[in-house]
Amino acid sequence: MTQNFSSHLLQRAVDEVSCLPGIGRKTALRLVLHLLRQDARVTSTLTEALSVLRNEVKYCRMCHNISDTDICEICANPKRDASTLCVVENIQDVMAIESTGLYRGLYHVLGGVISPMDGIGPSNLHIQSLVERVAAGGVREIILALSPTMEGDTTNYFIYRRLCQLSQTSDTSGTEHEDTPFSLPRITVIARGVAQNDELQHTDEATLGRALAGRIPFNV
Amino acid sequence: MTQNFSSHLLQRAVDEVSCLPGIGRKTALRLVLHLLRQDARVTSTLTEALSVLRNEVKYCRMCHNISDTDICEICANPKRDASTLCVVENIQDVMAIESTGLYRGLYHVLGGVISPMDGIGPSNLHIQSLVERVAAGGVREIILALSPTMEGDTTNYFIYRRLCQLSQTSDTSGTEHEDTPFSLPRITVIARGVAQNDELQHTDEATLGRALAGRIPFNV
Repeated sequence: MTQNFSSHLLQRAVDEVSCLPGIGRKTALRLVLHLLRQDARVTSTLTEALSVLRNEVKYCRMCHNISDTDICEICANPKRDASTLCVVENIQDVMAIESTGLYRGLYHVLGGVISPMDGIGPSNLHIQSLVERVAAGGVREIILALSPTMEGDTTNYFIYRRLCQLSQTSDTSGTEHEDTPFSLPRITVIARGVAQNDELQHTDEATLGRALAGRIPFNV
Repeated sequence: MTQNFSSHLLQRAVDEVSCLPGIGRKTALRLVLHLLRQDARVTSTLTEALSVLRNEVKYCRMCHNISDTDICEICANPKRDASTLCVVENIQDVMAIESTGLYRGLYHVLGGVISPMDGIGPSNLHIQSLVERVAAGGVREIILALSPTMEGDTTNYFIYRRLCQLSQTSDTSGTEHEDTPFSLPRITVIARGVAQNDELQHTDEATLGRALAGRIPFNV
């Protein structure tokens, strides 16, 4: 569809908004015309919030979660259990787990999962810094909470292998981490099974198979 | 859903974006995180395009279409037929008609339709300026191209009555437009019927009824 814009300013704004993912040209036009109908302050507040975020965004140097400070609120909180690390793909996953209110440990945000198809290898992710956090000692459990996809599984396995290698290296040579002898923490993975309130008949075979294989004793 | 944002800047940006119509908080977060993954220039180009549009937007003082200049490109084009005015609700409608490539006249953008439920009366629309354009003379046809809704029909009828009144006033007193005696232009309304490529069995009764009543001689 070619659109006949009577204003180049309008056309440029629509062009830019429609570059956003999932926003087509019709939606972009609707959003831009909405802003035109509102007070000019609505647009200035919106653009300023985006600019300030983009220019001043920081990432926690411990867990790589988005943060306004050098170390994020979660990592800096002395009430959190620093001996447990939950490895997640992105910051939305941190927010999802935080909203359960059931986790009191720290996080490690990988920034993605290994996906050769998309050109994402281990070096593009925050895996080395995870290994360093573990090697620094004090971590007793690592919870792998990546998505149950092939990429997630691959990444889980890669992290597991790297940690095993490292623990063996430090066991034998003992040069790098002499003062803190490195022992492999407990590595767990979040449970996979039938989702709460999902109907069994609509659950796919792979999920149902995993749920059967991973059955646990019934507890009242 | 309460979201646990680890950054107030992020939260503020998501708050602002989710004020846009049809954008929920999940979509807003997705869009904002997309901008964070892109180069900072992407954000600055987007925010600048929106700011410039909002601050410098103009509306054609003839037809009220959005424009970069005092009089829009359509009104200023000497090749367009200035004796025909097409009355539309908004600028999207101008774009829709322009994209047919079949209309060579000028437009008049009302800025909405009469809708007492939404508190929109005739004085909130550009109806007075339409009457003035017609009274100024030179207009031979007015095409009413509002949506075929109750509000559109009401607005059509209101415009028709206003033009009739005015033509009578100037006929009897002849004081206001003495030098340009005002005669009522031809007033037409766009055809209503079955949409191109629509299946008859899926057309609603009101549309089908109108299409039957408005039948025209078959022409090969």
